[in-house]
Amino acid sequence: MGKYALNTWYPIAWSRDITNNLVARRIVETDVVLYRNSRNHVVAHKDMCPHRMLPLSMGRLRGDAIECGYHGMTFDCSGTCVRIPGQRLLNPPPKIDTYPTYEQMGLVWIWMGDPTMADPSLIFDLPQYHDANWSAVEGDALELDCHYLNLADNLCDPSHVSFVHLSTLGTPAGEDVPVRMEMQDGHLVTWRWINNSPAIPLFQKFGNFSGNVDRWHYYHYYAPSIAIIDFGSAPTGTGAQEGNRSDCIQIYACHFMTPVDENKTIDHWLHVKNFHADEATNRALSAEFRKAFQEDKLILEAIHKNEQKHVNHTPVKLALDASPIKMRRMVADMIATETAPSMVPSTV
Amino acid sequence: MGKYALNTWYPIAWSRDITNNLVARRIVETDVVLYRNSRNHVVAHKDMCPHRMLPLSMGRLRGDAIECGYHGMTFDCSGTCVRIPGQRLLNPPPKIDTYPTYEQMGLVWIWMGDPTMADPSLIFDLPQYHDANWSAVEGDALELDCHYLNLADNLCDPSHVSFVHLSTLGTPAGEDVPVRMEMQDGHLVTWRWINNSPAIPLFQKFGNFSGNVDRWHYYHYYAPSIAIIDFGSAPTGTGAQEGNRSDCIQIYACHFMTPVDENKTIDHWLHVKNFHADEATNRALSAEFRKAFQEDKLILEAIHKNEQKHVNHTPVKLALDASPIKMRRMVADMIATETAPSMVPSTV
Amino acid sequence: MGKYALNTWYPIAWSRDITNNLVARRIVETDVVLYRNSRNHVVAHKDMCPHRMLPLSMGRLRGDAIECGYHGMTFDCSGTCVRIPGQRLLNPPPKIDTYPTYEQMGLVWIWMGDPTMADPSLIFDLPQYHDANWSAVEGDALELDCHYLNLADNLCDPSHVSFVHLSTLGTPAGEDVPVRMEMQDGHLVTWRWINNSPAIPLFQKFGNFSGNVDRWHYYHYYAPSIAIIDFGSAPTGTGAQEGNRSDCIQIYACHFMTPVDENKTIDHWLHVKNFHADEATNRALSAEFRKAFQEDKLILEAIHKNEQKHVNHTPVKLALDASPIKMRRMVADMIATETAPSMVPSTV
Repeated sequence: MGKYALNTWYPIAWSRDITNNLVARRIVETDVVLYRNSRNHVVAHKDMCPHRMLPLSMGRLRGDAIECGYHGMTFDCSGTCVRIPGQRLLNPPPKIDTYPTYEQMGLVWIWMGDPTMADPSLIFDLPQYHDANWSAVEGDALELDCHYLNLADNLCDPSHVSFVHLSTLGTPAGEDVPVRMEMQDGHLVTWRWINNSPAIPLFQKFGNFSGNVDRWHYYHYYAPSIAIIDFGSAPTGTGAQEGNRSDCIQIYACHFMTPVDENKTIDHWLHVKNFHADEATNRALSAEFRKAFQEDKLILEAIHKNEQKHVNHTPVKLALDASPIKMRRMVADMIATETAPSMVPSTV
Repeated sequence: MGKYALNTWYPIAWSRDITNNLVARRIVETDVVLYRNSRNHVVAHKDMCPHRMLPLSMGRLRGDAIECGYHGMTFDCSGTCVRIPGQRLLNPPPKIDTYPTYEQMGLVWIWMGDPTMADPSLIFDLPQYHDANWSAVEGDALELDCHYLNLADNLCDPSHVSFVHLSTLGTPAGEDVPVRMEMQDGHLVTWRWINNSPAIPLFQKFGNFSGNVDRWHYYHYYAPSIAIIDFGSAPTGTGAQEGNRSDCIQIYACHFMTPVDENKTIDHWLHVKNFHADEATNRALSAEFRKAFQEDKLILEAIHKNEQKHVNHTPVKLALDASPIKMRRMVADMIATETAPSMVPSTV
Repeated sequence: MGKYALNTWYPIAWSRDITNNLVARRIVETDVVLYRNSRNHVVAHKDMCPHRMLPLSMGRLRGDAIECGYHGMTFDCSGTCVRIPGQRLLNPPPKIDTYPTYEQMGLVWIWMGDPTMADPSLIFDLPQYHDANWSAVEGDALELDCHYLNLADNLCDPSHVSFVHLSTLGTPAGEDVPVRMEMQDGHLVTWRWINNSPAIPLFQKFGNFSGNVDRWHYYHYYAPSIAIIDFGSAPTGTGAQEGNRSDCIQIYACHFMTPVDENKTIDHWLHVKNFHADEATNRALSAEFRKAFQEDKLILEAIHKNEQKHVNHTPVKLALDASPIKMRRMVADMIATETAPSMVPSTV
């Protein structure tokens, strides 16, 4: 069985970072070179010249084609070699792997599996991202030295907030509140409400709450590498849990993970909120998220090191692990489906 | 056979460094978290939460219990889990490994083996450390990138001083003086006298010698990880070697080694001297030792690298190796005794 | 079969760097200590004391003998142990490996194989280096994190200049000019002429050309680790290719490679040119070469990394690979010859 689901769209870069310069990225243990061609399409090739193995990202663009920086072998947008300086083209011409891409929600998405299955309508979308009553602010591409499923664990797990993020996203009031999980239309939701307690530090800074609040945390996980955290607060007693959110703050913290390899993950994060703010406020809000995600990074990297040291450790399982266990099963099922031999009905 | 003797007390930290904060150490390839509880006892646990493998040293103290920084699992001083936020305690509660500790000579000592055998009266003690006529000055925790037995080699070996420490602890006068070894009450002593020669640079700085001196170097090794260097000088002709030390300078340079793993050792060093001095003099004396031990560190780390590169090298053996060979046999015997099956008398 | 040809002279250091201090070098995976003795001969020993494996380069010279920095074992220029402090010499005395050396063209050459075959007349020499009409300027010892045969690839390959060195040694005019190869007296020559085109940037700076030039690039490779690049330019139409070089600039860029190990190479480079210049000009010329070789270094180190990652990659072969393929076969033949059992004629 493979290590990664391949017939799926992965986020690989911010759209803002892909221009007509060559950019090197790595995903599912494959080096990829990206650039934007003259038709504004993002081209993605395997980042290695088949001749001497130089990364093509160290070469240069000649029009929409990419030229190797060592001997000038040149490949067009389809990956076909169109020039070998000093000699006639080989027949058939060498070809490099090329990957379908698509841009959505400010990100470049890439399909590393069977290209005939690469349907852009399958890419995750968040309606609020496009809604004029909401506002979206892009964050960073945070590099974590850990496996992406360990970050996914963290993003299926509202419990850790009460211990890891006391200065930003959590309060001690949540410590003993259990979480619940359920499947919704093929994705996994893990959630809890913490009612009638002080606002979290983030909302004490950016909200206008004079008293206690009712707050919710819905962690939506879309296998294999997307997590959308829907969290918000409303004044206690205004019926938020029953559905009345007229006076609330609500944020979708979106995590689009790139599985680089078994030891590295890039988390492209952004937030979409139900109000508009000036640029300074947006920057301050992003700074708070950045601070919180650094707290996660420290923890996930320490765990990753211990996993390398203690490969035979059998972990104690807690109630809160139900979601992470389910999450890993969803990914394993995707991989198993891809690698299973096609079922052919027997004729007798 | 194991790699380390375990049924023994190892020094693991300066007492001065263990307060009511969490401190991470590593010994015999095991990560340990240390803290001082409200009864002034040093608690030592295996430094890994059994749930997600986060080092517990990244959590926090809640009273005398330690709380994991990821999901709040909490363990008391006995290592028993006393809280799992958001759910009932498991039955039986999870338990983490906890190690006996004891404080002596300004150090925390730890017992990594069978806890029922952890008798504090077995811990090494130096009477002069407690004697008002002597004065003790604590040094550093020097990290060396080598196996602790290579440092022990060095500390059973008076010969190297004439070549490695010419600016501090040795003089060329000692180059050709052979060393002698003997066992005394279960520990190994390696020694030599260098008579009627100039004082070593250290004693030229801190002593008051106008002419030549008789000097002694007794290297006491207590398996597996303690070395006490008794060295001193008296004016030539005053009968020091025959036992009259009325006019001498004498220092016990004490090395308490922590075997971190096969590639790292911590040397906790201090000295105990037969005179009192002001703080500036003590600091200057420590600076000289620090300089000398840096010279050893350079050599031991270079040797360690060559041992990794040339695993099949058969070393030439010299006369001075008798003590290091004996030292390694003492450690091997300790390990063999621990791992031997108990002898059960046959009944027929 | 071995990994390196051993019965050959390798460059190991600049003569200028070997004085009566101990210098550590590494070649064909062997650590070597070098020093110049009182008879001005460069002594080369295996850089490891046979006692405790300390690099002898961390010891000191005592006269022409080398003393280990740990316990004073001392070895004379023949590698024989002549002193063991504190005891009688062992019989037979220990001996360390010692390697023949010779100095030529400003470099120390070393013979790592069978010392009975070490004939200095086999060392490469460039007549122009000694010719008063020419001038030689020593460059650096450039360290590259790659196998030396990958650097040799580059030095049998005039094609890359048109893509890698556009700011120094190449112009786009050469892109499509094929290269030719031939054997000359046992060494490999790869060459091309690029006629009637602008001078390369280097010659635009240092030459006096008012119009187009005819230029040549002859890459001479002497197995296993020497490459001499003969390149120059003459005004177009003066008959340079036919042999008239009266008005030309000509440079021999010499590369003397030290194969350190499979991941590291030192390139000792110098140039010999057919004119004299003041020191500032020479320095500026060296700076241009330094810039060009940094461009190669970037490429070769990136390729080396990809070779580690993709050990099973089958490269596409191009016409320009004929020379590198031949070059590797020359080295493989040298190694095979060394390691073949001697052929004994059968008597029946």
